[in-house]
Amino acid sequence: MMADRVFTEIEYIRPMEIEARSMEIIRQELSERGVTLDPVQAATVMRCIHSSADFDYVRTLRFSENAVERGIALLKAGATIVTDTNMALAGINKRALDRCKARAICYMADPRIAAEAKKRGVTRAAVSMEAASRLPGPVMLAIGNAPTALLSVYEMIKSGRWIPDFLIGVPVGFVNVVASKERIMSTLVPYIVNAGRKGGSNVAAAIVNSLLYQIEESRL
Amino acid sequence: MMADRVFTEIEYIRPMEIEARSMEIIRQELSERGVTLDPVQAATVMRCIHSSADFDYVRTLRFSENAVERGIALLKAGATIVTDTNMALAGINKRALDRCKARAICYMADPRIAAEAKKRGVTRAAVSMEAASRLPGPVMLAIGNAPTALLSVYEMIKSGRWIPDFLIGVPVGFVNVVASKERIMSTLVPYIVNAGRKGGSNVAAAIVNSLLYQIEESRL
Repeated sequence: MMADRVFTEIEYIRPMEIEARSMEIIRQELSERGVTLDPVQAATVMRCIHSSADFDYVRTLRFSENAVERGIALLKAGATIVTDTNMALAGINKRALDRCKARAICYMADPRIAAEAKKRGVTRAAVSMEAASRLPGPVMLAIGNAPTALLSVYEMIKSGRWIPDFLIGVPVGFVNVVASKERIMSTLVPYIVNAGRKGGSNVAAAIVNSLLYQIEESRL
Repeated sequence: MMADRVFTEIEYIRPMEIEARSMEIIRQELSERGVTLDPVQAATVMRCIHSSADFDYVRTLRFSENAVERGIALLKAGATIVTDTNMALAGINKRALDRCKARAICYMADPRIAAEAKKRGVTRAAVSMEAASRLPGPVMLAIGNAPTALLSVYEMIKSGRWIPDFLIGVPVGFVNVVASKERIMSTLVPYIVNAGRKGGSNVAAAIVNSLLYQIEESRL
């Protein structure tokens, strides 16, 4: 141990206050950067920053018209959220989800999906999206990992086979990530997409949670 | 649809080649930036970039002496990985884990942990770390979310109660994240830590996977 070392000070606050304090810091730093967020989009943008400590989301998050209001309405109406990873599924707040009529599922560990993907030489994520298209009721896709999932959805939209009710498109990475996001944003699907390479399962879950929490707050 | 819009080109490659292609792009961009990675640390740094599309990890990842070799040796010896979120747990490659004798657990959904945290006014993550300290055999902590988990471990190390065999410390956020990482890096615990605010459950899982995959590759 280096006893003499000077550490950054610890803020002593109660567990339930940590998140509010984080949001306060984010708000303050946005203000220092001269950023004013759209009031309807602010909660979603801030939760993406909160989950990544990355202020790039201010510049890169894209919302189709009235996306936040639509997303909230769908969750209230009991939409099924389909994620492309079990990580994103794990990151969605289950208590908040239960309080809506909504539910969240992920097909990635389903052996039938894996078998079909292998047979066709495509990714499990792509086949997952086709399974999502056969679900009854409104479907909100939350894609934080696989650009192939976005491309599969794009093909279904383009060919008129299916248009999801809502799409959160924030895959992360280097191969076809930018290309798949551009294509999705050219369609009529209501979306929240992060342009560029960044995103992730954590960000997909953060966006879903930002919508769920707004439903909770409106009930307080 | 805007039929005339020019999109970024799609790379048509097979699912199993996507990851190798991603790594090739990362390697190329590192080279364009004039970055040469330590050969032992390279796989871990690259996997963090792969999971975040964020080249900041080149500058901010910190390794204690021989950290990669130690981490790999512990996993080979059947260490128990304890994560601070179910998201990080979900992100660890279970097949790669099974092929070692290692296992991964998370106490965050354990109602006894929640009850004790509530009673004591501390976070579940902090109590989780105390539960980890009572496990038999080598323990590797993988903390991608809660600085309070790092601070709890720091207190146990400082008071001589416990020193984990290995610590992956990459919580993300704004409250006590930097402070907790600084403190952990002042101890004798073998670590991989991301200095600064960034990190996340995805990055914690990426670091674990980078060690697991190196074991797999050494067996090929």
